[in-house]
Amino acid sequence: MDQIEQLRRDLRAFAEERDWGQFHTPKNLAMALAAEAGELLEQFQWLTPEQSTQLDDARRAAVGDELADVLLYLVMLADRTGVDLGRAAREKIARNALRYPADRVRGKAARGEAD
Amino acid sequence: MDQIEQLRRDLRAFAEERDWGQFHTPKNLAMALAAEAGELLEQFQWLTPEQSTQLDDARRAAVGDELADVLLYLVMLADRTGVDLGRAAREKIARNALRYPADRVRGKAARGEAD
Amino acid sequence: MDQIEQLRRDLRAFAEERDWGQFHTPKNLAMALAAEAGELLEQFQWLTPEQSTQLDDARRAAVGDELADVLLYLVMLADRTGVDLGRAAREKIARNALRYPADRVRGKAARGEAD
Amino acid sequence: MDQIEQLRRDLRAFAEERDWGQFHTPKNLAMALAAEAGELLEQFQWLTPEQSTQLDDARRAAVGDELADVLLYLVMLADRTGVDLGRAAREKIARNALRYPADRVRGKAARGEAD
Repeated sequence: MDQIEQLRRDLRAFAEERDWGQFHTPKNLAMALAAEAGELLEQFQWLTPEQSTQLDDARRAAVGDELADVLLYLVMLADRTGVDLGRAAREKIARNALRYPADRVRGKAARGEAD
Repeated sequence: MDQIEQLRRDLRAFAEERDWGQFHTPKNLAMALAAEAGELLEQFQWLTPEQSTQLDDARRAAVGDELADVLLYLVMLADRTGVDLGRAAREKIARNALRYPADRVRGKAARGEAD
Repeated sequence: MDQIEQLRRDLRAFAEERDWGQFHTPKNLAMALAAEAGELLEQFQWLTPEQSTQLDDARRAAVGDELADVLLYLVMLADRTGVDLGRAAREKIARNALRYPADRVRGKAARGEAD
Repeated sequence: MDQIEQLRRDLRAFAEERDWGQFHTPKNLAMALAAEAGELLEQFQWLTPEQSTQLDDARRAAVGDELADVLLYLVMLADRTGVDLGRAAREKIARNALRYPADRVRGKAARGEAD
């Protein structure tokens, strides 16, 4: 099964077994996601850009842990708000392709492909 | 193909066509992800928890857009740091199941299943 | 002496004594500030809005600690970028007063007085 | 008058004139603060550390604007939670001085003076 779909089901069961749905309002999940994004920042804040491209194993594991946390809240939040996460992401890439034509933006920092 | 894997490939091609790899250091991607998490917060900051569970179509679309942005940077950051995102998420759920036994935490706000 | 100005001087001396200026680029300080804002979110993420207005002493101390962290990085970042923090804040309030006339927005959630 | 105290009074009057106190729960203010920290990140995310130390006037003004936004929510949140912001910051510096003795950490990236 698709990994996002599998995570969605597993996280739903996880919350139901613990009766945690009451805490998982979209507002609260958005906060939790952003808090995890903050922990991700901590991993990189004092590294140079170069150092950030050459993580040792301990740092890579810590980063992977934070990335997982963000993904879990992302999947739960999409589930609670009725958003199809994979489709939303594909549509965003399609819009970004129109917004940032390769021959016009090549090598120039755009405000970002995910603005 | 699995959606995360498909996104990973599409985002890689997208960045290569634009020569944007130079900007996509893990440090920069972590910042971009957190900035998108901030935009997600904006969608919910003045809503009550109840209102956040009953989004109208315009708000749901805006939320979906921000969730997509977070996912795109998440997939890029995992790709650049050599993290298997799906596996990291499954391992985290397994660890959380041990950390928060259902019969002990039922109905109590834990610090979070993704801490 | 004004508290912001005193903090600015104390933080400058603190960093100089430790030769930490090399780490304190504006980019890094912005990341550190956002990471602290994430820790602040953690304090509130599972509380109801009502609970957040009635903090017990332990929680208030923890919140105060995170607020202090944000302020320290804010003062350092303003210092490193040549921004007069107090003046910028007063100018922002003045602009917000024009943007959100009291008789037009009374009782309605604006996008925020600090957008 | 001290700038923080002046801001506190001005922001209180601003919210009262607009009947916005109802939206300004500590939970909501923490979200708004973190959202502004996200906007601050956007200003720096594609800059190199070097570029971030040499901002042009337009960028400095944009950064100053975001710093002001963070400070306004910080002052409001401290006011609503009964935290003395200046005192909390001074106490934090004192604790950090003990935690990071200059002769031990000189030139080494600590996890941060505001952790």
